Amino acid sequence: MSLLVVGTVAFDAIETPFGKTDKILGGAATYISLAASYFTHKINIVSVVGDDFPAEHIEMMNRHGIDTKGLEVKQGEKTFFWSGKYHIDMNTRDTLDTQLNVLANFNPVVPPEHRNPEFLMLGNLMPRIQQDIMRQMESRPKLIMMDTMNFWMEIAWDDLIETIKMVDVLTINDEEARLLTKEYSIVKAAKKILEMGPKYLIVKKGEHGALLFNKENVFFAPALPLEDVFDPTGAGDSFAGGFIGYLDQTKDISFDNLKRAVIFGSATASFCVEKFGTERLTGLSQNEVDDRIQEFIDLVQFDISLV
Amino acid sequence: MSLLVVGTVAFDAIETPFGKTDKILGGAATYISLAASYFTHKINIVSVVGDDFPAEHIEMMNRHGIDTKGLEVKQGEKTFFWSGKYHIDMNTRDTLDTQLNVLANFNPVVPPEHRNPEFLMLGNLMPRIQQDIMRQMESRPKLIMMDTMNFWMEIAWDDLIETIKMVDVLTINDEEARLLTKEYSIVKAAKKILEMGPKYLIVKKGEHGALLFNKENVFFAPALPLEDVFDPTGAGDSFAGGFIGYLDQTKDISFDNLKRAVIFGSATASFCVEKFGTERLTGLSQNEVDDRIQEFIDLVQFDISLV
Repeated sequence: MSLLVVGTVAFDAIETPFGKTDKILGGAATYISLAASYFTHKINIVSVVGDDFPAEHIEMMNRHGIDTKGLEVKQGEKTFFWSGKYHIDMNTRDTLDTQLNVLANFNPVVPPEHRNPEFLMLGNLMPRIQQDIMRQMESRPKLIMMDTMNFWMEIAWDDLIETIKMVDVLTINDEEARLLTKEYSIVKAAKKILEMGPKYLIVKKGEHGALLFNKENVFFAPALPLEDVFDPTGAGDSFAGGFIGYLDQTKDISFDNLKRAVIFGSATASFCVEKFGTERLTGLSQNEVDDRIQEFIDLVQFDISLV
Repeated sequence: MSLLVVGTVAFDAIETPFGKTDKILGGAATYISLAASYFTHKINIVSVVGDDFPAEHIEMMNRHGIDTKGLEVKQGEKTFFWSGKYHIDMNTRDTLDTQLNVLANFNPVVPPEHRNPEFLMLGNLMPRIQQDIMRQMESRPKLIMMDTMNFWMEIAWDDLIETIKMVDVLTINDEEARLLTKEYSIVKAAKKILEMGPKYLIVKKGEHGALLFNKENVFFAPALPLEDVFDPTGAGDSFAGGFIGYLDQTKDISFDNLKRAVIFGSATASFCVEKFGTERLTGLSQNEVDDRIQEFIDLVQFDISLV
């Protein structure tokens, strides 16, 4: 198995109703690869940081089986920094500060030995960079998944549409699905997006769960009802990481297996939001993961036999 | 089997982004009993209307197996009327007009032969009236379920708390659960509400589904993703009607059977919102209901075996 993850590795400073952090480890590729590490073991990341990025973070990733050969460290430059504050409903947030730093001129180069991944996960990045990564592949991966966000719909529409055409799975949130299609109904939006190229669409609805669509089927997984959502940062990326990590482990890209992957992704995301940043995603035990999956089974499974 | 339904029978005038209606048939007891009629056949309603209420509506209810002996027709008075307008998200609405009419002095009397129901459903009404109905029962029903709303939390708090203590299942929406407990987290709110008396709590989240809690378990059922939610009026009542109708059919009030009842309730509600008012709930076929249940099974069921 092999999974290539491309995306940001960053510093975040987060404020929620439960407290605030100084600069802590963040970034889409960080969350995705940590989440995937509970399911698969040959994970390579491609990203960039500055020389202010502590070696201990890289060591932690390596302990999780994440190969950081593709993580470029730019001397004399600083790591991408984002700071935000969540409102009480945790579904909305204000960005307080964004410092692109090394990300301003990010031209990722995939190390030659990592250009044949079976699974490719493109974290949220400028669509043109996501395209460029796909073009660096020596052979077409078994499955390519991409995340994106409303920002690119506003400033890079044509590039985004071109990029979406090239992938197998698109993952976006409900508001972004509406923005991308001008359809209020998520079902109608999903139909339009599946006409744009991807075989599968995942619509993330935060605390309201996630929907998986292909042209024939729809599957829904709830978010686990938690006493407190402590910090939603990284939940979507943890979902994506658990999802694609499970696919890389099982190699099965049937709709039935993608359904299972959605459950594994949801379980991983439910851990992520229990503490600030990546804290909960470092050092989970197999038992904790299994128990959480069982909680999802108990939450939604019922037994009705139609006669 | 026998189910007693108490609640409003009304006229509604509804405006949604898809159109508007003149005065059409509405009311909690109407939706509840029509929804229940797809699952059980001995349904008695207690309500009140004015002499402006058309006989054809009563005949339609009778055709659905609903006994209207407890439906008082007050001569010289008018039926309760509500008018509202939904916003584009269909989760919020403005009340344009409310004319209490016959409801202003509603003192329901349950016909003597209907005072031993196995299941009692108290639609949203003044809490003191809901209590009064319970006191008219000759023996305690197997299960009592009540619906209520934020309005009573604002003007009849003590009565409401007293009423909640007396029932087995409380059904409210997420905002009302928060208002009732001063807890933002639905999980925390549920714990507090289950301390207040009811054995079961159903938290309705509209298009985001419904949660069933008891002290030990939680179960989640999504709303069916629809191309268009045409008119959400009566969705919550249709859910309650499908839920309690299924319980009355099966007589099983275990948590496992309540889970099934939530699915039957959700399926019934998913029909309700497809057309204006009660239109879709009159004349569904058994095949349509079965197919819809199958859609719910397909929507959420997955197969994960933990080893």
